[in-house]
Amino acid sequence: MESVNSDLQRERESAGISSEDFAVWWAGGRDKLQQRRAVERYFFDDPEFDDAVPPSCMSYKERYEHSIAKGTKFVARLRQWQRENGYNEQSVNLKAVHDFRLMLSGPLGTALFQQSFPLRLHFGMFLPSILNLGTEEQQRTWLERAWRMDGIIGTYAQTELGHGSFIRGLETRADYDVASEEFVLNTPSLSAYKWWPGGMGQTANMVVVLAQLYINGNHHGLQPFLVRIRDEQTHEPLPGIDVGDIGPKMGGNGVNNGFLGLRNVRIPRQQMLMKHAQVMVDGTFVRKAKPQLVYGPMVFVRVMIVRDAMFQLLQAATIATRYSLVRRQSPIEPGQAEPQILDHLTQQVKVLPQIARGICYRLVADELWRFYNDVTQSQSTQAQLAELHALSCCLKSVCTADSAEGIDMLRKCCGGHGYLASSNFDSIMGLANAAYTYEGEHTVLLLQTARFLLHNYEDALKRRVMPASITYLRLPVRHSWGNNLMENAVRALEISAVEQLRDAWEWLRQQRKRGQTLEQATNLSGRRLTAAATLYGHAYLTRNTLQQLKQLQKLPKLGEILAQLLELYILDSFLRQLSAILRWQSISARQVQQVEQRFEQLLTQLRPNALAIVDGFDFDDRVLNSTLGAHDGRVYERLMEQARRNPLNQESVNGSYYTHLQPLLRGKL
Amino acid sequence: MESVNSDLQRERESAGISSEDFAVWWAGGRDKLQQRRAVERYFFDDPEFDDAVPPSCMSYKERYEHSIAKGTKFVARLRQWQRENGYNEQSVNLKAVHDFRLMLSGPLGTALFQQSFPLRLHFGMFLPSILNLGTEEQQRTWLERAWRMDGIIGTYAQTELGHGSFIRGLETRADYDVASEEFVLNTPSLSAYKWWPGGMGQTANMVVVLAQLYINGNHHGLQPFLVRIRDEQTHEPLPGIDVGDIGPKMGGNGVNNGFLGLRNVRIPRQQMLMKHAQVMVDGTFVRKAKPQLVYGPMVFVRVMIVRDAMFQLLQAATIATRYSLVRRQSPIEPGQAEPQILDHLTQQVKVLPQIARGICYRLVADELWRFYNDVTQSQSTQAQLAELHALSCCLKSVCTADSAEGIDMLRKCCGGHGYLASSNFDSIMGLANAAYTYEGEHTVLLLQTARFLLHNYEDALKRRVMPASITYLRLPVRHSWGNNLMENAVRALEISAVEQLRDAWEWLRQQRKRGQTLEQATNLSGRRLTAAATLYGHAYLTRNTLQQLKQLQKLPKLGEILAQLLELYILDSFLRQLSAILRWQSISARQVQQVEQRFEQLLTQLRPNALAIVDGFDFDDRVLNSTLGAHDGRVYERLMEQARRNPLNQESVNGSYYTHLQPLLRGKL
Repeated sequence: MESVNSDLQRERESAGISSEDFAVWWAGGRDKLQQRRAVERYFFDDPEFDDAVPPSCMSYKERYEHSIAKGTKFVARLRQWQRENGYNEQSVNLKAVHDFRLMLSGPLGTALFQQSFPLRLHFGMFLPSILNLGTEEQQRTWLERAWRMDGIIGTYAQTELGHGSFIRGLETRADYDVASEEFVLNTPSLSAYKWWPGGMGQTANMVVVLAQLYINGNHHGLQPFLVRIRDEQTHEPLPGIDVGDIGPKMGGNGVNNGFLGLRNVRIPRQQMLMKHAQVMVDGTFVRKAKPQLVYGPMVFVRVMIVRDAMFQLLQAATIATRYSLVRRQSPIEPGQAEPQILDHLTQQVKVLPQIARGICYRLVADELWRFYNDVTQSQSTQAQLAELHALSCCLKSVCTADSAEGIDMLRKCCGGHGYLASSNFDSIMGLANAAYTYEGEHTVLLLQTARFLLHNYEDALKRRVMPASITYLRLPVRHSWGNNLMENAVRALEISAVEQLRDAWEWLRQQRKRGQTLEQATNLSGRRLTAAATLYGHAYLTRNTLQQLKQLQKLPKLGEILAQLLELYILDSFLRQLSAILRWQSISARQVQQVEQRFEQLLTQLRPNALAIVDGFDFDDRVLNSTLGAHDGRVYERLMEQARRNPLNQESVNGSYYTHLQPLLRGKL
Repeated sequence: MESVNSDLQRERESAGISSEDFAVWWAGGRDKLQQRRAVERYFFDDPEFDDAVPPSCMSYKERYEHSIAKGTKFVARLRQWQRENGYNEQSVNLKAVHDFRLMLSGPLGTALFQQSFPLRLHFGMFLPSILNLGTEEQQRTWLERAWRMDGIIGTYAQTELGHGSFIRGLETRADYDVASEEFVLNTPSLSAYKWWPGGMGQTANMVVVLAQLYINGNHHGLQPFLVRIRDEQTHEPLPGIDVGDIGPKMGGNGVNNGFLGLRNVRIPRQQMLMKHAQVMVDGTFVRKAKPQLVYGPMVFVRVMIVRDAMFQLLQAATIATRYSLVRRQSPIEPGQAEPQILDHLTQQVKVLPQIARGICYRLVADELWRFYNDVTQSQSTQAQLAELHALSCCLKSVCTADSAEGIDMLRKCCGGHGYLASSNFDSIMGLANAAYTYEGEHTVLLLQTARFLLHNYEDALKRRVMPASITYLRLPVRHSWGNNLMENAVRALEISAVEQLRDAWEWLRQQRKRGQTLEQATNLSGRRLTAAATLYGHAYLTRNTLQQLKQLQKLPKLGEILAQLLELYILDSFLRQLSAILRWQSISARQVQQVEQRFEQLLTQLRPNALAIVDGFDFDDRVLNSTLGAHDGRVYERLMEQARRNPLNQESVNGSYYTHLQPLLRGKL
């Protein structure tokens, strides 16, 4: 049997770039690349992490139990690896926690837990909550124990069955009882049940519960409380606790998302996390930090999600590219052999722009991360905070939506096989779909972005200084189409961002003049405002790409291919936003055709290097977990192997034949 | 406990139309409505068809066994119902088979088999194959037995692991052996394995196998063969048969899709289905029918799929509408209660156009069905056949793609809850996603449509008579924007359909002049050709809507609401295709704003009747099968009830605690 598909072999031999060069650049240097590969090998070579039965064939309960078995092994082996490699496992700080979170949503975590895993929120939300929301004393009490998981598995519960984005609407309440120096937590109605927290169903025994604080009947806002929900020894739910799993989802079925109801659950006063606000023994309430600071973690999470979206999109693009080079179909020339489907222009249009998009998302995620560090580590101005908040909202919305759309396209362009669970598009799509909603719903975040834009639009009219990402608000809304197609495209996007914003602003003013309140008028402008925010995102993404291109095209060996990819992304963005562009600018049919021709030319130029590029992302086969996308391209062999592993195929006649089909076939039903 | 959500109650009381009136119109009359309701009640009141455990919690194998148990009961009960209601179950003809197929993909079948079911292809493809492809003698031998399922459960196997759309590439071969008067069937390679047929894994015992016929080494095209694959008594695979299930998919997991390999499998000469071509005893090959006639069933299937797409979209729209009226979030006015989310304009934009779209798909499906009957029942011209073929290809592609996109939007606008399996978007989306590919892949069909358009474009240049759906090819490509917004919108779509076609045609000619072969030039024009075909679809859909509106708006009671819905669809289509429109026509920003304002105004007008309209589709709760979309609107109650049914919640501590979590928590891992 051949060890590598001969088409892939040939593609690799004839590529114009080295995928290893690409991998080194992509990883940020040879050291980082080798480091990552070493950690991956440590786990992937361990047979304990192989799945005997494909998880997609398991029942929901089996899948949970499987992910607990694998997840606990993972934690144990990781600690072992850390000891062997000189990491001090006792040290715990925000960086260690963040690194762990990155590992879980990065290649290694993805490879081991394709549908995420139930200890994720312990590291991703519970520990950061103690770090960000706990006093120093509370950190001393809880942090090391939690990091070692010494009797503690935690999660974080904010969202309720009936309440999501609007946090003031949350109903769970905590009443301070001065006599006993305790908080009494209650779920006053069905819609107040906590709903969604990962790991809360059967796994966690402690929860950071967000609840409305009341002292003597006075409301003091939403506060975090540390609540034990299961007995440390028996793991039985404690009195007053109603906890369980919320059931199967479109993806992330390893997460054990749970519900939680509280009935007169009492916790000591010390278990309100009091870094930002305090309740004294006598019930005095003291607010310490400005609520604005609380935004920090949310911004961080959204910055991370842009990276997740990139990662998921490129996984899917790698699978689709390899499949499109193995699959042969429909002769282009009559009488000739069926070509690799990536030779069809219609397939190139579906696949190659997604690769380019993923790379540009990576560039913007890096840029956003730099910005985040600048703003949070130095004395930042109110304006910078506002811009960071707006950018993180907007890019989270735009990148998750477009990445999910791209993954869907990549799945579809693999035809029927892309529909099989064994292609793994299902799992990738499942996680990508979740990101559209969680940590800030798409439309809600766009409306927040629009608020920032409206505010600055008025400043721009007053000729004030603009934040960096929207300096173009003060430029003229006319641009003469020059020879530089990319500059034309980016300017066109910026101008339509301004014009769409102007349109929303004027519409809003018009509604106000008709006597609507500001809020009513904002509601009636919702469609226009979200359109303006989306265009702001595309303008920022393409401008950032154009700026980075100037440096990247100078890179030895890779400069030319990166320039092609970045140009493809910019022109693709232009063509995809054409309706918004043409609405507000007079660009001729001929000028659009110019972009279109160059776009198609770039596809042709990139085609011979498509495999080398996706090889350069250096996804291990375990990460892709796909019958269609493995490095060796043995697509049909893997499809068949995977099908044969299906438990349904382990017996030649299924039991239901005797009980149901046979009576039917003999007319006895 | 309240029996109906009070918001829904209020919406129903204040609606301006009667949902029952709407239901009567939608069903095509009161008789038809009552008939459907009666059949549904017969099954839904039968506790045998309730699921003890949510199928989404089952393993893949359990799900199969569950669907076999339910499917065989369904067949038995249906026969009982037919006997009780005077149907003669012995009669079998194309209509009976088609009715059965319609029932399976209609409300009743959907309610009972949310992920489709493994006997479906017996009725949907196996029986029609015998009817369409078998001689009269073959029909006498097989038809009645197959209809009664007397020792026969069949399926239909065409697609192979390595071959789909390009049927000449199929590899399975049948060699005629004159000496024994048998065909010898073989799967010459891994990529030649049959792959996908529903029910083929563990259920069917006979298969219509499409194979390349060879007689004395001479090739005689693809022919259908009736092959027994499992023993009639024991159900064991017969010698030379390698059969199994291909594994879990994104949806349709009740179907038992299978693979099949054949090694020297012999069948008597009489088991080639010989209506269109015959092999005589001595090996003489006689072709009887023109291959063109073979298209008939494929066109029929695509016409049906447009109806399926409509049905799936409206299920999703009903769920999202009801949820959007129960869910309350984010005050519009500060200090006021959180409004129903359908009061947010941004939510109206997501939900209401999907309702309108589904209704217009229904109108076009009816129209296409009339056209199909005209063409197939009368002496039709070659031109009519070509138009029917193009229309069915194009509408299948456009409607399935846009319907899937709409369902995805409806799912997303239900936030996190839409992501839960219990919302049922997952199953609906799964089936909608499959339709993008099966029975003619999206892009392949658009390219076939484009071939028809190119041909007619050249005819139009020669001033020939045009088929009805493209008479506009001969109209001037300038249209003055008049007072009738809908007419403006439809004309704008028609003109861009012409212009995009012209662009593709010119580009193709240009490539030819550069020395490319026709096929190469066509490949290089692929992006432009599919764009032209898509616009043809939108032009046809909106023109059909506009034509029907003239009649429908006269309807008593419902005329006004239908006029609003159809107008919303037309204006929405215009706005969604704006880039293609503005590329080729000079329409001012002000004119676009006019459409936009009217579009938003229609949303406001439709809002108060949204619930009455979706109630009027008259989907039983069992059909929607959704915690979010039930008629009583008890969303949170159902979410919690469904979560509690999850087997993971049946024990207070999961077994994996003792084996894995406890050792971890005690530092013993």
